[in-house]
Amino acid sequence: NDLHIDLFRNKRLGFDEVIYGKNKSTNQLIDIINLYKNKNLNFFCTGLHPEKINELEKVFPDLYFSRESGTARNFAYPETKISNSVGVITAGTSDAQVAYEAIETLRVLGIPFEKYIDIGVAGIHRFLHYLDDLRNHSVLIVIAGMEGALPSVVGGIFAQPIIAVPTSVGYGTALSGFTPLFAMLTSCANGITVVNIDNGFGAAMAAFRILQQIENKND
Amino acid sequence: NDLHIDLFRNKRLGFDEVIYGKNKSTNQLIDIINLYKNKNLNFFCTGLHPEKINELEKVFPDLYFSRESGTARNFAYPETKISNSVGVITAGTSDAQVAYEAIETLRVLGIPFEKYIDIGVAGIHRFLHYLDDLRNHSVLIVIAGMEGALPSVVGGIFAQPIIAVPTSVGYGTALSGFTPLFAMLTSCANGITVVNIDNGFGAAMAAFRILQQIENKND
Amino acid sequence: NDLHIDLFRNKRLGFDEVIYGKNKSTNQLIDIINLYKNKNLNFFCTGLHPEKINELEKVFPDLYFSRESGTARNFAYPETKISNSVGVITAGTSDAQVAYEAIETLRVLGIPFEKYIDIGVAGIHRFLHYLDDLRNHSVLIVIAGMEGALPSVVGGIFAQPIIAVPTSVGYGTALSGFTPLFAMLTSCANGITVVNIDNGFGAAMAAFRILQQIENKND
Amino acid sequence: NDLHIDLFRNKRLGFDEVIYGKNKSTNQLIDIINLYKNKNLNFFCTGLHPEKINELEKVFPDLYFSRESGTARNFAYPETKISNSVGVITAGTSDAQVAYEAIETLRVLGIPFEKYIDIGVAGIHRFLHYLDDLRNHSVLIVIAGMEGALPSVVGGIFAQPIIAVPTSVGYGTALSGFTPLFAMLTSCANGITVVNIDNGFGAAMAAFRILQQIENKND
Amino acid sequence: NDLHIDLFRNKRLGFDEVIYGKNKSTNQLIDIINLYKNKNLNFFCTGLHPEKINELEKVFPDLYFSRESGTARNFAYPETKISNSVGVITAGTSDAQVAYEAIETLRVLGIPFEKYIDIGVAGIHRFLHYLDDLRNHSVLIVIAGMEGALPSVVGGIFAQPIIAVPTSVGYGTALSGFTPLFAMLTSCANGITVVNIDNGFGAAMAAFRILQQIENKND
Amino acid sequence: NDLHIDLFRNKRLGFDEVIYGKNKSTNQLIDIINLYKNKNLNFFCTGLHPEKINELEKVFPDLYFSRESGTARNFAYPETKISNSVGVITAGTSDAQVAYEAIETLRVLGIPFEKYIDIGVAGIHRFLHYLDDLRNHSVLIVIAGMEGALPSVVGGIFAQPIIAVPTSVGYGTALSGFTPLFAMLTSCANGITVVNIDNGFGAAMAAFRILQQIENKND
Amino acid sequence: NDLHIDLFRNKRLGFDEVIYGKNKSTNQLIDIINLYKNKNLNFFCTGLHPEKINELEKVFPDLYFSRESGTARNFAYPETKISNSVGVITAGTSDAQVAYEAIETLRVLGIPFEKYIDIGVAGIHRFLHYLDDLRNHSVLIVIAGMEGALPSVVGGIFAQPIIAVPTSVGYGTALSGFTPLFAMLTSCANGITVVNIDNGFGAAMAAFRILQQIENKND
Amino acid sequence: NDLHIDLFRNKRLGFDEVIYGKNKSTNQLIDIINLYKNKNLNFFCTGLHPEKINELEKVFPDLYFSRESGTARNFAYPETKISNSVGVITAGTSDAQVAYEAIETLRVLGIPFEKYIDIGVAGIHRFLHYLDDLRNHSVLIVIAGMEGALPSVVGGIFAQPIIAVPTSVGYGTALSGFTPLFAMLTSCANGITVVNIDNGFGAAMAAFRILQQIENKND
Ligand SMILES: Nc1ncnc2c1ncn2[C@@H]1O[C@H](COP(=O)(O)O)[C@@H](O)[C@H]1O
Ligand SMILES: Nc1ncnc2c1ncn2[C@@H]1O[C@H](COP(=O)(O)O)[C@@H](O)[C@H]1O
Ligand SMILES: Nc1ncnc2c1ncn2[C@@H]1O[C@H](COP(=O)(O)O)[C@@H](O)[C@H]1O
Ligand SMILES: Nc1ncnc2c1ncn2[C@@H]1O[C@H](COP(=O)(O)O)[C@@H](O)[C@H]1O
Ligand SMILES: [Mg+2]
Ligand SMILES: [Mg+2]
Ligand SMILES: [Mg+2]
Ligand SMILES: [Mg+2]
Ligand SMILES: [Mg+2]
Ligand SMILES: [Mg+2]
Ligand SMILES: [Mg+2]
Ligand SMILES: [Mg+2]
Repeated sequence: NDLHIDLFRNKRLGFDEVIYGKNKSTNQLIDIINLYKNKNLNFFCTGLHPEKINELEKVFPDLYFSRESGTARNFAYPETKISNSVGVITAGTSDAQVAYEAIETLRVLGIPFEKYIDIGVAGIHRFLHYLDDLRNHSVLIVIAGMEGALPSVVGGIFAQPIIAVPTSVGYGTALSGFTPLFAMLTSCANGITVVNIDNGFGAAMAAFRILQQIENKND
Repeated sequence: NDLHIDLFRNKRLGFDEVIYGKNKSTNQLIDIINLYKNKNLNFFCTGLHPEKINELEKVFPDLYFSRESGTARNFAYPETKISNSVGVITAGTSDAQVAYEAIETLRVLGIPFEKYIDIGVAGIHRFLHYLDDLRNHSVLIVIAGMEGALPSVVGGIFAQPIIAVPTSVGYGTALSGFTPLFAMLTSCANGITVVNIDNGFGAAMAAFRILQQIENKND
Repeated sequence: NDLHIDLFRNKRLGFDEVIYGKNKSTNQLIDIINLYKNKNLNFFCTGLHPEKINELEKVFPDLYFSRESGTARNFAYPETKISNSVGVITAGTSDAQVAYEAIETLRVLGIPFEKYIDIGVAGIHRFLHYLDDLRNHSVLIVIAGMEGALPSVVGGIFAQPIIAVPTSVGYGTALSGFTPLFAMLTSCANGITVVNIDNGFGAAMAAFRILQQIENKND
Repeated sequence: NDLHIDLFRNKRLGFDEVIYGKNKSTNQLIDIINLYKNKNLNFFCTGLHPEKINELEKVFPDLYFSRESGTARNFAYPETKISNSVGVITAGTSDAQVAYEAIETLRVLGIPFEKYIDIGVAGIHRFLHYLDDLRNHSVLIVIAGMEGALPSVVGGIFAQPIIAVPTSVGYGTALSGFTPLFAMLTSCANGITVVNIDNGFGAAMAAFRILQQIENKND
Repeated sequence: NDLHIDLFRNKRLGFDEVIYGKNKSTNQLIDIINLYKNKNLNFFCTGLHPEKINELEKVFPDLYFSRESGTARNFAYPETKISNSVGVITAGTSDAQVAYEAIETLRVLGIPFEKYIDIGVAGIHRFLHYLDDLRNHSVLIVIAGMEGALPSVVGGIFAQPIIAVPTSVGYGTALSGFTPLFAMLTSCANGITVVNIDNGFGAAMAAFRILQQIENKND
Repeated sequence: NDLHIDLFRNKRLGFDEVIYGKNKSTNQLIDIINLYKNKNLNFFCTGLHPEKINELEKVFPDLYFSRESGTARNFAYPETKISNSVGVITAGTSDAQVAYEAIETLRVLGIPFEKYIDIGVAGIHRFLHYLDDLRNHSVLIVIAGMEGALPSVVGGIFAQPIIAVPTSVGYGTALSGFTPLFAMLTSCANGITVVNIDNGFGAAMAAFRILQQIENKND
Repeated sequence: NDLHIDLFRNKRLGFDEVIYGKNKSTNQLIDIINLYKNKNLNFFCTGLHPEKINELEKVFPDLYFSRESGTARNFAYPETKISNSVGVITAGTSDAQVAYEAIETLRVLGIPFEKYIDIGVAGIHRFLHYLDDLRNHSVLIVIAGMEGALPSVVGGIFAQPIIAVPTSVGYGTALSGFTPLFAMLTSCANGITVVNIDNGFGAAMAAFRILQQIENKND
Repeated sequence: NDLHIDLFRNKRLGFDEVIYGKNKSTNQLIDIINLYKNKNLNFFCTGLHPEKINELEKVFPDLYFSRESGTARNFAYPETKISNSVGVITAGTSDAQVAYEAIETLRVLGIPFEKYIDIGVAGIHRFLHYLDDLRNHSVLIVIAGMEGALPSVVGGIFAQPIIAVPTSVGYGTALSGFTPLFAMLTSCANGITVVNIDNGFGAAMAAFRILQQIENKND
């Protein structure tokens, strides 16, 4: 068998290995899911194209599939284990699918969150309207495509840790997400950190690492 | 002689040929200046490195040199010929030298202007403070390096023509100005236009084209 | 609901929010259109692939769809509100679809225009034939793919504001439009401004900003 | 005067505006320092080339200059205000100067830290030797050039927030730091976040944002 | 006929010409296979998309096709001619298909091998578990996508020749394999060599060149 | 009508306008062909995808279509008007389709030619076998993908004008043809000239320009 | 000795090996020149920086150095051996130094030529003024930086072979010459061929290959 | 002290840690050399700019410095420990300095070698002249800049392991060595492996890994 599941990851990091579905064939995924079932392990998979979900659903009708976030899992959401929350913000409606991947991951990790979709800088009053709500979260995930300006504005106003996620939304000079990626990395607002293009999953994981520290020190 | 001055440019476009100094050797520039002197033409040159200015100043002590804008000219500023004005905005202090090139060109063209330096999004209240002043200009030149977010914010609030100028300020993912360039071109604010990196000269020229139309139609 | 319509944009900028259709799923678009219908708002959407139009047409047969420009709207063209006109020029026939997006936007904004398709530099007499017609417009939108040389020639002859639009027409070193984009930005003709690749919409919006100034000052 | 100091940044974010020195001329910096002196403000500046420091030192012999981190300040380090600490790790000795920028910033912010220089994957036993020490820190800053592999290894073993900093160390395919940047962003270890190339300052700022949350929730 | 088979390659290099199938049309491939059949030559072809295999299988049902490695051949595996072996390692399960291309080529060349799939740095204990097994091979082929960190770790521990193969696994900043390619080329582990992205075939060929030298000198 | 045929091109350059089919919709092409028919003009079109040819063939069954070269025309090949010939060489079989585009264009222009397919440097004796034949041509078109080494070898041995054509054959670091393009442009063999990637048409046109000079001076 | 002079190049190609000086150290060049002197060979070297010329001139005061073209030679210009001529055109004055390299090479090869400097598209009447003169040459070398539009205009009007040379003149999006390079390769004028950026030497060599064919066929 | 020498590298890999000098300051290097001296360790350092060597030579006049290879060491060459040899080939004279780095490393490792400088494809008879000599080596290091064609020709003729080294020799489209790098990686000759641009050191290390295997299996 060509799979080495990382069985000790939860022990080391506090979360199980998550399967990355994008570059795996449907056949490979079927083998993996069967292995997880046989071993009674928690299966969570990201990066699934809608068509791959259709094929997998035929074989495993009992899995939980989410087309809008491109994920699958074989377990129910856990109880919320963490007392602090995450704000998930997007600049446009087109960025929503990346937010859904982050949110599904937060749910799987038992982290409370609030979402703020489509409040980007082209109409900045929409963002300003939520200033008080946003101040309540311990971490802000800010998702934007095209020119990726929103994290700079957020980072100039709020003191929390900010995890910026560039998206591949846009065309031409948006460069499939490299322009907002580079913009976020060279932001004039200080202390913003960044994850890979469209990587809502990674942003949630980074939030989890931070929240775990807050909880630990809090005990 | 290896120079063909474009003697009819003013007739066609309303301004004289401007010499581009960056890729010319000092010897080439000396030949050109002498030619302009002999023919009694207006000489205006951009893209001059401070050291090149030092060398030229020794040969032509009577020229007007501007180190902060990298320009030289052999004539006094004309009278202001145009009744509408331009607002020249920069995000940071580091972007000021590009603003100076735009301003020197506006002066040479007889265009009234106001400058607003260092009012970028990292501290957005600085920009908001000038909302009323900015509304008075017929054209806004918005200059920013790093992530180049300012034109998106300006373009979302103001209805005037906006000429965005990316600068090479920043390092790493600022990509010598390509990141703000691409960001400005893919801005979610509509109808922003863009010129080359650090091209304060070109922005002023574009403003001139617009202002000429306003004046013409006004008569 | 994951949508924050920018209801005050017309007040600020003189035009309503336009929906960007390219990176939205058909389901997202259906939700948005229903929302616009319920609120009795003007819906205008760009960046629609022909197949997406087919799907939307089934659900909303009463919308106005334009396959050649990739747009949809739920209202009739307004009366022409503006007295000055725009010339829309393309280098080749392949660039026509970008021109159609610009033209549809001009129509929606109530701006008069004239089109000049397929008059690029490979047979420059075609462009020279229209010199007198072109001089009558207050703004010139110049659209070209491949090497993007036409705006340089136009900008060297005409004094009006020139908005250059690079297109993704070409192959290999045309770089999906980055070569004409860079060529236009580094043009030796002065004061040309540029918008994103294939962005006919943005060019029309930039023209609108200019024409609004001319009208305002004219009153 | 061409400077708008962001006087309320400390109130909003908990730290003062930091001057970015790289793209400012020595003359601009002298003006800024004088302004800060006159207003009795805390001046801290990053991105200073050794030669610029030499010039500034002649004018302001009473400033604190640090050549190895490229910084200057006009105030003594504050008392440590924060009870949790940061581990600063580098892969090679060549990456040390980026670590020094991070460390100087941590000192200015009053954050306790420990440094671990030159323990990269080419001799992985060096890193393994510090496993126990590293577990004590609340945040890990991991700095690496060339192939940037160290954050992946660290992130696979430790559960804390990890801020990865790519450096411009290397040649050819190291791409002046873009290779480790992209490697860190696409790391198979989950939840790693990244800042700009050589941006030790930004990494310290991001750590500060996290530590502030831990402190706040702790009270 | 538009084909010049290199009939002397085996004489010069010890292996026959291998057909590169990716950029050939199915019609071209059918012509080539018929030619090989008529001339009674050994046909081995790489780079075959599953759909192309489907089409070829209809015409040549007697060929050996391998969908997981994208190859076809008209002859049985030869006897193992070589006494030393190759270890084929991958970082993830998604990299397995590149390993299969390498393995099929090793089989065709009569080289013994062992495979170690999915033992990358995110859970480094999986790799450490095989330290003793890996030491027995004369050459190590190390295959990794995303950040491509595994060859650095392997090369820092093992003294054998290491042939690193970047894969196109990943998204965004993985750059379709250029990020692991550049990472491997700029590895801080010394003496690692690299082949093209996804080039399992080339890695096996390079191993063959090395093993031939060991055999020759051994006689 | 949105088409300006360049009716004087033959007079200026000796050949008619050729339609570039790649970025035109089938509808646009149908309009154009009808126009050419109505005006009784010679229609020659390149860059046609096989599927587009299928659609056009249904409408215009009397046109001459060539799937392997991606072209269509409405006239028979002219008599050979030129006494000197062109050698068309490719490195691999995969490069043949670009050769066919060049050859179809040479036929349309009435130029004699000889083809030499699949004689690249991996088995250099294949090329050496044709040394005497190749010496007879007045121009050599050398077509190669992947590393694009063949033009350097040809240019180091033969004195004729050499027009190198990079192809998009290869994967990974072949960069869709940019690697052979750049290799050919930086060849250590002197006086090689290059055309766009996959541009067999352009190479034939460049040969035509040279051969016309030879004929003219010969009269 | 670490040099293998190609003694048979003239026999094969009609010209001697030319030394490429850019990446050779002054010491290497001194060794090479001494070798050429001892063997009584014709030495011609390109790519010499002015400072390298200064150093070499001290050691070899009897060589012919040309600072404006960056070349050195140890022999007088040959008699003109060729009856047809070359037109050398540049778009701007800044492109002149590349023209000088081409011209020096033409002189060394005994080819008659005429130069037309600074007649680019920003003032297209300058080019139109020379239409009749340009028609007389058998080959046109067209040199341009920035957007590189001139070869498209020339190629649309003239039937001769056109060798386009992009220059590194410009800034920002001129991309050190890659923008005019790509523009020339994707030109809508047919049959233009291109050489490397700033490669005046290669353009002259390509012209030589063409002129040799004309002469040969003429005899 | 900010240095963790890898003391067990020789035990693991058969060679000591080599100091990479390029991105270290002279002060850092002085500290390191002193540490090596105090600990009586073998110091070997690569990537030293001539000026850095000048500075180090003043402090450590007893070290062995090599300006042409950019290296320093504190020990004499060891006895030749290995019975098989390496052929070091370059395409041009400009590539020689990379060959010297490889050769110095081979000497330090006690490996016999032969050099073949300046025998590239522009005059391919130079390479053909050495066919018999080259067949004797167990490994071939092939170094080339510009278009990097030589490894393809060598790999098509010789059966040994071939380590290709791209160099930064060339200009424009040579892309500072990325063009030969990509060309070598996508070579149509099979089983060529590649190291980083200008990395003569790495090529020698890779040869060492291979030769060690041959020796081991031989015993
Ligand atoms: N090393 C650094 N890297 C990135 N940004 C910085 C750095 N140091 C300061 N900054 C920020 O850069 C902004 C630059 O604006 P300015 O100094 O006005 O050009 C400042 O407001 C700081 O927030
Ligand atoms: N010329 C070179 N190119 C690439 N890597 C090198 C070179 N010389 C030494 N190295 C490696 O680079 C690592 C650099 O780490 P450091 O010296 O700590 O910055 C050393 O451990 C060597 O393994
Ligand atoms: N700063 C500038 N940026 C871009 N173009 C310029 C600039 N200054 C002058 N130009 C234009 O560049 C052209 C350059 O041609 P030349 O001076 O002949 O090399 C001139 O005709 C001007 O139109
Ligand atoms: N300016 C130039 N640009 C490109 N290639 C050149 C130039 N000058 C000479 N060459 C060629 O470059 C090769 C370089 O090899 P080498 O001089 O041995 O490094 C020579 O054989 C010439 O054919
Ligand atoms: Mg929206
Ligand atoms: Mg500031
Ligand atoms: Mg046309
Ligand atoms: Mg070290
Ligand atoms: Mg796995
Ligand atoms: Mg073949
Ligand atoms: Mg000029
Ligand atoms: Mg040579």
